Amino acid sequence: MIHASICTIGDEILIGQVVDTNSSRLAAALEEAGIRVTRMLSIGDAREEILNNLRNELTVNDIVITTGGLGPTKDDITKGVLAELSGSTGYVEHAGQLAIVKDILHSRGLDMLESNRAQALVPDRCEVIENHLGTAPIMVFRFPEDSFGATLYALPGVPFEAVGAIPSVMEDIRAHFPLADILHRSIMVFGIAESALSELIAPWEDALPEDMHLAYLPNPLTGIRLRLSIYGGNREEEKARVEHQLVRLKEILGNKVYSDQDDTLEATVGRLLKAAGKTLSAAESCTGGEISHLITSVPGSSAYYLGSVTSYAVSVKEKVLGVPAETVERCGVVSGEVAAAMAEGVRRVTGSDYAVSTTGLAGPDGDAFNPVGTVWIGVAGPRGTKTVRKNFRNDRKRNIERFAAAALDFLRLTIIDDLNN
Amino acid sequence: MIHASICTIGDEILIGQVVDTNSSRLAAALEEAGIRVTRMLSIGDAREEILNNLRNELTVNDIVITTGGLGPTKDDITKGVLAELSGSTGYVEHAGQLAIVKDILHSRGLDMLESNRAQALVPDRCEVIENHLGTAPIMVFRFPEDSFGATLYALPGVPFEAVGAIPSVMEDIRAHFPLADILHRSIMVFGIAESALSELIAPWEDALPEDMHLAYLPNPLTGIRLRLSIYGGNREEEKARVEHQLVRLKEILGNKVYSDQDDTLEATVGRLLKAAGKTLSAAESCTGGEISHLITSVPGSSAYYLGSVTSYAVSVKEKVLGVPAETVERCGVVSGEVAAAMAEGVRRVTGSDYAVSTTGLAGPDGDAFNPVGTVWIGVAGPRGTKTVRKNFRNDRKRNIERFAAAALDFLRLTIIDDLNN
Repeated sequence: MIHASICTIGDEILIGQVVDTNSSRLAAALEEAGIRVTRMLSIGDAREEILNNLRNELTVNDIVITTGGLGPTKDDITKGVLAELSGSTGYVEHAGQLAIVKDILHSRGLDMLESNRAQALVPDRCEVIENHLGTAPIMVFRFPEDSFGATLYALPGVPFEAVGAIPSVMEDIRAHFPLADILHRSIMVFGIAESALSELIAPWEDALPEDMHLAYLPNPLTGIRLRLSIYGGNREEEKARVEHQLVRLKEILGNKVYSDQDDTLEATVGRLLKAAGKTLSAAESCTGGEISHLITSVPGSSAYYLGSVTSYAVSVKEKVLGVPAETVERCGVVSGEVAAAMAEGVRRVTGSDYAVSTTGLAGPDGDAFNPVGTVWIGVAGPRGTKTVRKNFRNDRKRNIERFAAAALDFLRLTIIDDLNN
Repeated sequence: MIHASICTIGDEILIGQVVDTNSSRLAAALEEAGIRVTRMLSIGDAREEILNNLRNELTVNDIVITTGGLGPTKDDITKGVLAELSGSTGYVEHAGQLAIVKDILHSRGLDMLESNRAQALVPDRCEVIENHLGTAPIMVFRFPEDSFGATLYALPGVPFEAVGAIPSVMEDIRAHFPLADILHRSIMVFGIAESALSELIAPWEDALPEDMHLAYLPNPLTGIRLRLSIYGGNREEEKARVEHQLVRLKEILGNKVYSDQDDTLEATVGRLLKAAGKTLSAAESCTGGEISHLITSVPGSSAYYLGSVTSYAVSVKEKVLGVPAETVERCGVVSGEVAAAMAEGVRRVTGSDYAVSTTGLAGPDGDAFNPVGTVWIGVAGPRGTKTVRKNFRNDRKRNIERFAAAALDFLRLTIIDDLNN
């Protein structure tokens, strides 16, 4: 199996100023091609550090990809260090990249400076992949067997340029390395804690064939992604073996599985609504707009989503949603009765088929009747209204996320129930 | 100077399925304390790799912080490897963390499983910092001088828990390491691009004393944080020097500065409303609930925030907010007239003093009249209604963020105007 390392060069990463998103995109591309990423690292703009780290990575990997440090300013020293590392004896001007530099400057109405022209200079021991999105070329150093016997790709750090370089880098890798096959398949699970899930599927997991690997990837907004991987799995036979295992897993988990793609609850709810030809609205109290925000983050959601009322004040619950003052008085704002009345109210006001509601205590404080982390969820639909109470215990931000995800899941289960009955 | 390394453990990072955001947050906290982060790395859930990498990092750093690999499932092996690395002879149950595990399960209505109980077991050579946000404790391994002479902090990988652990980890670091004095002061700026800001303040920045350092920290939701740092700056004299510089900077930037703390636009708007004794509501179209979500993410926002209407469908704009069909017909949904009618409508419906509204095109597509990235923002208040058009050109997610931030800033400037006149 081919081993690769991804190395980000730049002080701005080490001081926490910038989140490194390039490495993740590169890793996904390598992984999809069946290349094992052994390590990612971020190092600063310092000669010794770059030399030592790259020597080490080149020794233990077949491929090293660097991003960053190729800009025209003084603190960008990667190119010089790579010239040194590769034993280059000088720089050559790359005509193709120089033409691109000229074009880019021209389109911005700028004159060519010496520092711009220098961007097209590359160490004489490297090959160039032209970068049409920026001034710095992609440099490929093929170290011979008697040195590291590995290949180094140096990419620009600007995310737009680094991600843009991935297809041509992968093409070069495919042309030069014998790649193995790897297959990943994921299913999305909601409404069960990681530990309970682990216990529930233990018999299945323990019986997995040696060549399959299961990973748990939890996320508060999307639940747990269960990913099954198999190496050498692109042949039809292996695919069928993975699918067979997933079918059994889905039988065990039932409707806790909401998707067999890499997916979100809000996209799943959207698909269900579209398939059923139904519309949706929301009435939010403690979630304060988060449910609506999630639903509308899905492109095309205007096809089924009409809108929402965030009734933060009791007066808005009463005036806009028509929640009876008597209900609030008798049951309290955080109650199943109010959740039901909110869902029914927004369904009536917007004329939607389904409506989902929340009323609860995200924090920092609880009230006289309920601890912080309590939420009542309501779903009103063509077949009536249901409510459920959930309890969490996180900080405000996290509770809002958990409440919203739980509400989307309750809505999902209600729609599925309606479709099946 | 104290040197630190941040090490992320988990296959999900190496295959590019998850972007590592923990390292960046940890790096920022370490850097603010004057600690130099020498390297960040991400490695997989494999014993040899964890051992080799941690040994190396512990040899060349004073502090190593790991995140990840502490879950209850089989693929999480970090705890066992740390027991081995530290020469622990067994595990002990940590009563405090066990009580937290029980509480968490109880609040979710779950029974304690063996795998849950095991979360409170720690190697006998570590100290525990309780993790109140999840089941896995934070483990502190202080390696004696005759081994690595360094300290390792093992944090959970879940971002909410890892970020939540930062204050107590930093407290422990401050108690055990001689840190240089460093003073940071930030101001928050909105409504100006980084390059324009840089040009505007160049004369001031160029004249800064040698011992002061300025950093630009941009963020789409909060604008640009300008951070002025001085080493050895905890004495009163140095503080006064920094303040003096900031006063001059604020004079240059005027009301583009919205806070002189590390702050958000939504918190600033909240403070202004509280001080003025005014209430707020929102009418959202393209932002889909994001503005309301941001406002209600501030604890105590119920004191001034009444609620919102997300009028995604035109019918909701008309029926709930009373936007005249004739206005939509004549001006188009994405227009200043509709933004104004939406703000006035939600202000009337909720009875708030101020109301903010958005109508625009987040993407992926524009319409016949406006390109994607166009938004009209309305603010209705005691002194009338104002609208403004803004144009961005990002993807859907980023546009929604930019629209919401621009709306909050327009609201902020309107309230300040009203207060001053």
